[in-house]
Amino acid sequence: MTVIAAYLYRNGQRVREVSITERIDCAEDKSEFVWIGVASPTAEEMRTLQQNYNLHPLAVEDAIKADQLPKVDIYGEQLFVVARTAHVEDQAIAYGETAIFIGHSHIISVRHGSARGHIELRHALEAVPDRLAHGVDYVLHAILDFIVDGYLPIVEGIEEEVLTMEQHTVDNFLGRDEITRIFNLRRQLIRFQRILAPMQEVATKFVKIDLPCIDPETRPYFSDVRDHVRRVQTMVDDLREVLNSVFEFSNLLEQQRTGTITRQLAAWAAILAVPTAIAGIYGMNFEHMPELKTRYGYFVVLGVILLICSILYRRFRKLNWL
Amino acid sequence: MTVIAAYLYRNGQRVREVSITERIDCAEDKSEFVWIGVASPTAEEMRTLQQNYNLHPLAVEDAIKADQLPKVDIYGEQLFVVARTAHVEDQAIAYGETAIFIGHSHIISVRHGSARGHIELRHALEAVPDRLAHGVDYVLHAILDFIVDGYLPIVEGIEEEVLTMEQHTVDNFLGRDEITRIFNLRRQLIRFQRILAPMQEVATKFVKIDLPCIDPETRPYFSDVRDHVRRVQTMVDDLREVLNSVFEFSNLLEQQRTGTITRQLAAWAAILAVPTAIAGIYGMNFEHMPELKTRYGYFVVLGVILLICSILYRRFRKLNWL
Amino acid sequence: MTVIAAYLYRNGQRVREVSITERIDCAEDKSEFVWIGVASPTAEEMRTLQQNYNLHPLAVEDAIKADQLPKVDIYGEQLFVVARTAHVEDQAIAYGETAIFIGHSHIISVRHGSARGHIELRHALEAVPDRLAHGVDYVLHAILDFIVDGYLPIVEGIEEEVLTMEQHTVDNFLGRDEITRIFNLRRQLIRFQRILAPMQEVATKFVKIDLPCIDPETRPYFSDVRDHVRRVQTMVDDLREVLNSVFEFSNLLEQQRTGTITRQLAAWAAILAVPTAIAGIYGMNFEHMPELKTRYGYFVVLGVILLICSILYRRFRKLNWL
Amino acid sequence: MTVIAAYLYRNGQRVREVSITERIDCAEDKSEFVWIGVASPTAEEMRTLQQNYNLHPLAVEDAIKADQLPKVDIYGEQLFVVARTAHVEDQAIAYGETAIFIGHSHIISVRHGSARGHIELRHALEAVPDRLAHGVDYVLHAILDFIVDGYLPIVEGIEEEVLTMEQHTVDNFLGRDEITRIFNLRRQLIRFQRILAPMQEVATKFVKIDLPCIDPETRPYFSDVRDHVRRVQTMVDDLREVLNSVFEFSNLLEQQRTGTITRQLAAWAAILAVPTAIAGIYGMNFEHMPELKTRYGYFVVLGVILLICSILYRRFRKLNWL
Amino acid sequence: MTVIAAYLYRNGQRVREVSITERIDCAEDKSEFVWIGVASPTAEEMRTLQQNYNLHPLAVEDAIKADQLPKVDIYGEQLFVVARTAHVEDQAIAYGETAIFIGHSHIISVRHGSARGHIELRHALEAVPDRLAHGVDYVLHAILDFIVDGYLPIVEGIEEEVLTMEQHTVDNFLGRDEITRIFNLRRQLIRFQRILAPMQEVATKFVKIDLPCIDPETRPYFSDVRDHVRRVQTMVDDLREVLNSVFEFSNLLEQQRTGTITRQLAAWAAILAVPTAIAGIYGMNFEHMPELKTRYGYFVVLGVILLICSILYRRFRKLNWL
Ligand SMILES: [Mg+2]
Ligand SMILES: [Mg+2]
Ligand SMILES: [Mg+2]
Ligand SMILES: [Mg+2]
Ligand SMILES: [Mg+2]
Ligand SMILES: [Mg+2]
Ligand SMILES: [Mg+2]
Ligand SMILES: [Mg+2]
Ligand SMILES: [Mg+2]
Ligand SMILES: [Mg+2]
Ligand SMILES: [Mg+2]
Ligand SMILES: [Mg+2]
Ligand SMILES: [Mg+2]
Ligand SMILES: [Mg+2]
Ligand SMILES: [Mg+2]
Ligand SMILES: [Mg+2]
Ligand SMILES: [Mg+2]
Ligand SMILES: [Mg+2]
Ligand SMILES: [Mg+2]
Ligand SMILES: [Mg+2]
Ligand SMILES: [Mg+2]
Ligand SMILES: [Mg+2]
Ligand SMILES: [Mg+2]
Ligand SMILES: [Mg+2]
Ligand SMILES: [Mg+2]
Ligand SMILES: [Mg+2]
Ligand SMILES: [Mg+2]
Ligand SMILES: [Mg+2]
Ligand SMILES: [Mg+2]
Ligand SMILES: [Mg+2]
Ligand SMILES: [Mg+2]
Repeated sequence: MTVIAAYLYRNGQRVREVSITERIDCAEDKSEFVWIGVASPTAEEMRTLQQNYNLHPLAVEDAIKADQLPKVDIYGEQLFVVARTAHVEDQAIAYGETAIFIGHSHIISVRHGSARGHIELRHALEAVPDRLAHGVDYVLHAILDFIVDGYLPIVEGIEEEVLTMEQHTVDNFLGRDEITRIFNLRRQLIRFQRILAPMQEVATKFVKIDLPCIDPETRPYFSDVRDHVRRVQTMVDDLREVLNSVFEFSNLLEQQRTGTITRQLAAWAAILAVPTAIAGIYGMNFEHMPELKTRYGYFVVLGVILLICSILYRRFRKLNWL
Repeated sequence: MTVIAAYLYRNGQRVREVSITERIDCAEDKSEFVWIGVASPTAEEMRTLQQNYNLHPLAVEDAIKADQLPKVDIYGEQLFVVARTAHVEDQAIAYGETAIFIGHSHIISVRHGSARGHIELRHALEAVPDRLAHGVDYVLHAILDFIVDGYLPIVEGIEEEVLTMEQHTVDNFLGRDEITRIFNLRRQLIRFQRILAPMQEVATKFVKIDLPCIDPETRPYFSDVRDHVRRVQTMVDDLREVLNSVFEFSNLLEQQRTGTITRQLAAWAAILAVPTAIAGIYGMNFEHMPELKTRYGYFVVLGVILLICSILYRRFRKLNWL
Repeated sequence: MTVIAAYLYRNGQRVREVSITERIDCAEDKSEFVWIGVASPTAEEMRTLQQNYNLHPLAVEDAIKADQLPKVDIYGEQLFVVARTAHVEDQAIAYGETAIFIGHSHIISVRHGSARGHIELRHALEAVPDRLAHGVDYVLHAILDFIVDGYLPIVEGIEEEVLTMEQHTVDNFLGRDEITRIFNLRRQLIRFQRILAPMQEVATKFVKIDLPCIDPETRPYFSDVRDHVRRVQTMVDDLREVLNSVFEFSNLLEQQRTGTITRQLAAWAAILAVPTAIAGIYGMNFEHMPELKTRYGYFVVLGVILLICSILYRRFRKLNWL
Repeated sequence: MTVIAAYLYRNGQRVREVSITERIDCAEDKSEFVWIGVASPTAEEMRTLQQNYNLHPLAVEDAIKADQLPKVDIYGEQLFVVARTAHVEDQAIAYGETAIFIGHSHIISVRHGSARGHIELRHALEAVPDRLAHGVDYVLHAILDFIVDGYLPIVEGIEEEVLTMEQHTVDNFLGRDEITRIFNLRRQLIRFQRILAPMQEVATKFVKIDLPCIDPETRPYFSDVRDHVRRVQTMVDDLREVLNSVFEFSNLLEQQRTGTITRQLAAWAAILAVPTAIAGIYGMNFEHMPELKTRYGYFVVLGVILLICSILYRRFRKLNWL
Repeated sequence: MTVIAAYLYRNGQRVREVSITERIDCAEDKSEFVWIGVASPTAEEMRTLQQNYNLHPLAVEDAIKADQLPKVDIYGEQLFVVARTAHVEDQAIAYGETAIFIGHSHIISVRHGSARGHIELRHALEAVPDRLAHGVDYVLHAILDFIVDGYLPIVEGIEEEVLTMEQHTVDNFLGRDEITRIFNLRRQLIRFQRILAPMQEVATKFVKIDLPCIDPETRPYFSDVRDHVRRVQTMVDDLREVLNSVFEFSNLLEQQRTGTITRQLAAWAAILAVPTAIAGIYGMNFEHMPELKTRYGYFVVLGVILLICSILYRRFRKLNWL
């Protein structure tokens, strides 16, 4: 584990750095609290925190294992929130997990596999002490807002790729690589939807339900987070729709093209069967074939062949087969 | 920003123009209020309004960014409503966003990218002072009604195009451009549905829930707005259904046509294989081929070929292959 | 407008005809009420009714425009109900709209485009004065019941056509006209479902919610109407299912048939390629081709061709290709 | 109508047979009640029952017409329950309808088109007088349980057929009759689902809602009925899934087979085109064709043909086309 | 039946072994209770337990038959819980059923067809007497947790197989065996989803509803079980999605390949038709065919054939048909 940062705050100001091994007694007042940020902690380190801040063992277990869907758990007077972070890795969306313990005068964030630390966020909050003075609920909001804000550039990246691909489909047929990429993107979007749905539920809980440690005045702030999640959800829904359209569209054009070619093939086969059949007949070796001896037979046959072929050709053109 | 219009009203009558930089104190009475309309404001101008009308910073942020889905937010005794306007641009539905701040004695509309201003609406309302005298809730209803009324001609335009296309499909095969257009229209309808659903939720909230600044007597008016949204939704659902049918129908006919042609091809291949095979045999150069020397061999062979071919032809006709 | 009928009733008996221009004062008693039936009224005529019966302007607007989905609106102590009637026109379901204003002592029905008048209904109700004496809620039930009863024969007509078509599919391939008809019927059923769903909601409201002017004792009667709507819904769901099956079934058979023919084509092409190839070789004009000079070469070659062809034929039969 | 059985019960014992034309006055006590079973009654007989037991006219109408979906209606202090029975007829599920009137001291079952009478059920209940002594709610439970128990063997019969068919598909291609049967079974399952859903709602109502004449202590018994309906529902869902899989699977294999054959056809066409083209050239009758005069020209050409053909053959094998 | 284990516990410690035939009177205190585990009991043995622990006959029936979906039944002051266990058998998921009777001072688990006994679980619980001292609710949680933990390795096994198959699809075409396996896996996942959904409902009931014998303090523990079920559900949803993608993807590629080959076939047919037609004409036996007598006619014709063929070849290459 790296303890990224651990400070005691009073009235929105840093008072002093704290160690995870000490027990801190804060004032009853909401404006005094400890904010600790750790990353990939060991089980033992988590147990130290558990004892000092009276964390629930089930929550601690979840924070260590880091295999949860987004959720809000209530443990007596404390809250345990799990959020999923997202970032791009090797052209695919990769997910991290941030677990947050909230008590009356402490907030502890535990990050796993997330690409962006909370340091900038902490600096940004410290720059407006008025807000930080409100207490842990405002810090929680800031963290969730920070995580959800990280979703948008990812979806926008995918959007750009998808729209380029869509434009490409209108003018071309899809190759094997493009089909593979479409399926890959669709899978990623579906997986993202499965993260976004419980993230929205998490935000909605803070808007709709009275939760310990959370002041009702913060509701508009969590409602704002929910709006952001919803917007991302709408974009993702939209992109899935576009991918499905690209797929169906390409499918339909492929089928249409096969139909066109089948008709062309049939037309040319019919046209070329004429000289083959007629010439075959006059290629027979019968001794008594009167036409063979006539002076202009050959030219007449050539003419007949040309005539029939050009009639057929015009017909097929009319039918739009050629 | 252009301040489109900003007036103080009392008992449904314009009292005087107001500036966004002044703070107005209205009577407790609902019949006195300020109605301000601005378009694409700068952040600074919005901050001026925020201070004078005590707007919530999160609402102000949304009104500036203009990237929200339709919603109703409650901030203490004030309301913040976001609606989406729609208009046609380059054969596609384009969307604007109108954010509305409602307080006890003020209503501020902030328009982004909407094609129709509220001036006519204001004149229409001023023409019936009785209604305007009721207060801001009636103005809010008028704005929402105005926005929703703008949806219908758009859907009717698409409806006309879709029905023409449907009629065309019954008699013709779809070309590449038509397929492209169908997919394009379907995408637009799906996107429109995603705007209509939260718009309906917005209208429903005013019908079902007690909201600050909104008199219960206005419920039938918002219910009327909801009916309009629903009607548009039903039309859009219907059009998507029609487009899907056009698509499936065309698909099925294409497949059927390919089947028909495959059968024709097979039939003609079988018929023409007869002279080819027989003539091929009598085209061999063996010295001892007794038939070649007979007087009427050639005519017999011609006759046999004709006979077999016409039997085959009749059979295929019976099977409906030709 | 035609005022179809307008009478004052007391204790289930006609007292006298009334004019829409007079204002009627009924006893407090539920058993005295006015029942007016009009068809396609002008805006002015509706305004006369509005003033005499204190109808809400929004409801009057809906009754004039006649572009509503089925719904129940509550305006203070009055109700406004919209129902959709259905009848068959040119082999398609056509819809009318009946708007009903219900007050304590009046019920006004406004019909648009419905094929069946309410005269018979009125006579039927007048024949059982006991029921009519209960008041306007029983009249409302009778009208809704009458409208919903009109749905069944329509669906039964479609059912008959669909089942005939289904039987036909089992034995035949679908032609273009039949496919067109299936798509047409499916569209009609989907549109009907969109009318039936809010009609069911309307009936359910009278069963589940206390509404002004509606006695709780009438609930079983509205529940009966709801059962009828549900039964029609179930039939329509079923018919859509059948049409989808007919479609998919036909599609699958077409595909199977194409597969069968492709195999036949391949088999015959293989068989006929044998004489063509062999005869082609012995049709070459080389001077030194020893086989050509042998006495029985021709017969041997013919035999070989026959042998190979019949072996191939048997193989293809075994594979079920022929 | 046949009055199947009609008895007065007290403390779980038959007291005497009763006639439908007499009016019975039972003790206030739940343990005394009349249980009447009739099948396909005439309207007049139902009217007799209606008068003696004070049945609601709408319920009586439903019981005569027998065209209802499963439901529970409350008429004051009486209940009216409709259930659907199922049995197999001509390899298809056929449905009957059992309507049940429940009052404080009477239970009247009206059967239509059901294959199994309630006599055995009556005997089984009479064998445990303790239970029968509880009153009409236990009789109602017994009837519903009896009806729902009749569903299982039907679904098991279909299950057996479906699983046999599924096994068959893995090894064979589907013929026309099998496809017809699959569609037929699917239709039956969908129709059954439409009966099961409201049957489950009926059972759920007795578990969740306080209903007249029904003792809360009977809830576990109705919950047991609901479990049975659910199990049947799960089986039916499962079977639909299997049928869909059989269908899709067969479809995919057919398509794959067509692909394989198309490739074979293409390969053989390419191979056989070689001797045809080459032999055609040497079959031309030009006077000056030097190759024709060479001693070993014929053998060289034969060799070249064989060589090219075998090269092509090997290539196609490698590509898995042959 | 094997009575796996039956002990009386007090304060988390084993007091003594008990027999199922004796009636145990425990202290009012939650910390004294009997925990009995049996497997596949006979009806008679269950009746003994029923009498001694006052179990409800319907619950006992379910525990004997073992054909239930997961559920929670409340019988007065007792609970009856059914859970489904899962294990892998012959490459398929097999299901067992564990029914659990919970009373104030007894917990009886009845296992059917489950592969893992509860002995280890019992030892694990006895190792932490503090927890066991809480009472039967903690034991129930432990059993459910144990069952749900058994799901994960199964899904992970399938996940591995599915992902391998998916990777394989990107580079190869699917054979018949692979298609069979995909359909088989999909069926298993759908069936598993049908078990997981009611299992989640069971866990949710313990989290959301006050149930007899269950202390509110245990809620976080059942919430943890629910999280595990949800995670498995999400994985199963995901795997179904992957299988569908593999299927659709393979389908699309197969179709594309058929299209490619059809084009190749058409191209080669066109190219080879040129020598066939031209050579056919010069293979006719007319006496007067001036070209035949020219010195370089043959070479000119050969050249013309080559020229036309190579022009066609280049065209088809450009069109990407070859
Ligand atoms: Mg999905
Ligand atoms: Mg989810
Ligand atoms: Mg979740
Ligand atoms: Mg959302
Ligand atoms: Mg959304
Ligand atoms: Mg969403
Ligand atoms: Mg779509
Ligand atoms: Mg969608
Ligand atoms: Mg939406
Ligand atoms: Mg929304
Ligand atoms: Mg709607
Ligand atoms: Mg709608
Ligand atoms: Mg549809
Ligand atoms: Mg609808
Ligand atoms: Mg509606
Ligand atoms: Mg319904
Ligand atoms: Mg229904
Ligand atoms: Mg329905
Ligand atoms: Mg279906
Ligand atoms: Mg149903
Ligand atoms: Mg129903
Ligand atoms: Mg169910
Ligand atoms: Mg179920
Ligand atoms: Mg179900
Ligand atoms: Mg499925
Ligand atoms: Mg389920
Ligand atoms: Mg269930
Ligand atoms: Mg879940
Ligand atoms: Mg989940
Ligand atoms: Mg899930
Ligand atoms: Mg999908």
